[in-house]
Amino acid sequence: MTVRKDIEVVEVGLRDGLQNVAVAMSTDAKKDWLSGAAAAGILEIEACSFVPVKLFPQFADNEAVVAHALSLTPMTVSALTPNARGAADALAAGVQKLSFTLSASRRHSLANVRKTPEEQLGEFRRLIEVRDADGRGVTVTGGLSTAFGCTLEGEVAEADVCRLAEGLVGAGADDISLADTVGYASPADIRRLVRAVRREIGGKLTTLHLHDTRGLGLANVIAGIEAGITVFDASLGGLGGCPYAPGASGNICTEDLVFMLESMGLSTGIDLEALLELRARVEQHMPGAEFHGALARARLPKHWIPPRRRGISPK
Amino acid sequence: MTVRKDIEVVEVGLRDGLQNVAVAMSTDAKKDWLSGAAAAGILEIEACSFVPVKLFPQFADNEAVVAHALSLTPMTVSALTPNARGAADALAAGVQKLSFTLSASRRHSLANVRKTPEEQLGEFRRLIEVRDADGRGVTVTGGLSTAFGCTLEGEVAEADVCRLAEGLVGAGADDISLADTVGYASPADIRRLVRAVRREIGGKLTTLHLHDTRGLGLANVIAGIEAGITVFDASLGGLGGCPYAPGASGNICTEDLVFMLESMGLSTGIDLEALLELRARVEQHMPGAEFHGALARARLPKHWIPPRRRGISPK
Repeated sequence: MTVRKDIEVVEVGLRDGLQNVAVAMSTDAKKDWLSGAAAAGILEIEACSFVPVKLFPQFADNEAVVAHALSLTPMTVSALTPNARGAADALAAGVQKLSFTLSASRRHSLANVRKTPEEQLGEFRRLIEVRDADGRGVTVTGGLSTAFGCTLEGEVAEADVCRLAEGLVGAGADDISLADTVGYASPADIRRLVRAVRREIGGKLTTLHLHDTRGLGLANVIAGIEAGITVFDASLGGLGGCPYAPGASGNICTEDLVFMLESMGLSTGIDLEALLELRARVEQHMPGAEFHGALARARLPKHWIPPRRRGISPK
Repeated sequence: MTVRKDIEVVEVGLRDGLQNVAVAMSTDAKKDWLSGAAAAGILEIEACSFVPVKLFPQFADNEAVVAHALSLTPMTVSALTPNARGAADALAAGVQKLSFTLSASRRHSLANVRKTPEEQLGEFRRLIEVRDADGRGVTVTGGLSTAFGCTLEGEVAEADVCRLAEGLVGAGADDISLADTVGYASPADIRRLVRAVRREIGGKLTTLHLHDTRGLGLANVIAGIEAGITVFDASLGGLGGCPYAPGASGNICTEDLVFMLESMGLSTGIDLEALLELRARVEQHMPGAEFHGALARARLPKHWIPPRRRGISPK
């Protein structure tokens, strides 16, 4: 089955949205989310994170979650794998794409995983060995978090981001993602850094992972598209708030992103009405969680038809 | 006094934010807002609307409000004047810039003011006569509301918007503003319509009045800047929600807009910290009103210095 799409939207709510939530979501609720995402036309979903269950009990059901997600073709099932051990577990579960994250900020990296970025590159090489030994040719994305700045370090040098992106590609990453982890980036920063990294690694930089902490998320998407980015992570209801910015929204909101792209004539393959219904169901699964996003409150414009169905070409 | 600015931000909260509010704001609170806006570096403020006081008692103190605003140089004091009578009152009060609005949607125009757009063009010609008779050469902005679509009519034809923009300029408008009154526009729509109208009236199209109803407000600003727009209306805390979309935010939020522009190295002349303090004061003046915006919750990034002060040129 082939679905034409101009921009890929990767739903990361089940991973990024749940990793900071105090109350675990039931396995059945996760399966419902996955089924609804597939039915709405989501083509890739980050289903979980292969982290120690002792520290993150919300990911104790990874195997059951991944097994259900794999039944929902043609959706690609990815997972966050912070190290070689997590990658081995993810591959054993049948995950089709691995995401590894390395913080471009030295202080953030040390605070978060007690390793320097260079030591994390070593961990990434071990992860690639695990992927290669598996033999199925599973895709690996190398993500650079805090690429646009860091609450601990302030500015993160462009040269460091470029060097680490090259390091990830050299170690075997299939594609690279830049993350604005704490919502510091402006559209000008997006253009500047995407161009700089693309000068080093070209089209291997495919993805942006943006947070909407300061309201610039969708403006940053526009800048990213202009700079050649074709894949965006997003989270239903903007789940996934940064714990350092209480009350601030987290990831860019999947339904608002899809509304913007489809309104521009950029096809995502996603049915917005089905996505809004799914959001309402997920809200019921997460009582007390703060959901963000404008479209769910304002609803679709009356008489709204995606412009591509009206024959308006993207601009 | 000259203030260098790349983009003009016009604060419209005192007009657009208050016109739908049930409880009137006191004159002292309005003066405090005006003083705070001037102190923060706001260079133009829409201070009120010259509408019948019987229908809009919140504008009963226009004269006192305008008198206070005029004392706050170098801030330009503008007002909404929906007809020639309002323009005469505004000029008598000393207003320095008049804004007139005409709805590009025939059904919206009939529902709102019981006149067709063409009849409204006639009203605008009478307003221009009043301005010309006044002799002080006060600037008049012709605004086209529902330019990007309408809840009653759905799509509004590009040809209608172009024709009405030409009509306003032909009648004597100094500059033209396009309004996305109900938050239907995408960045692609902004580019398309700004280019189309500029083909007809060139640089007379200076301004966008955007609502953030569906979360695309700041993304639309990026598209507008790329298409040559240099003036944006905005409202502190995103006040000014459309009554047809309960709970949806209204105008784009001044402080989020200024944060985006300054982060991009585009100077606005506005001090963001002073603006955030002002927002907190205005919130106290309007208990129960729903304030929007991400920056006020997440606060400025640590170590944040506007990039232009760090010597980064706009991109």
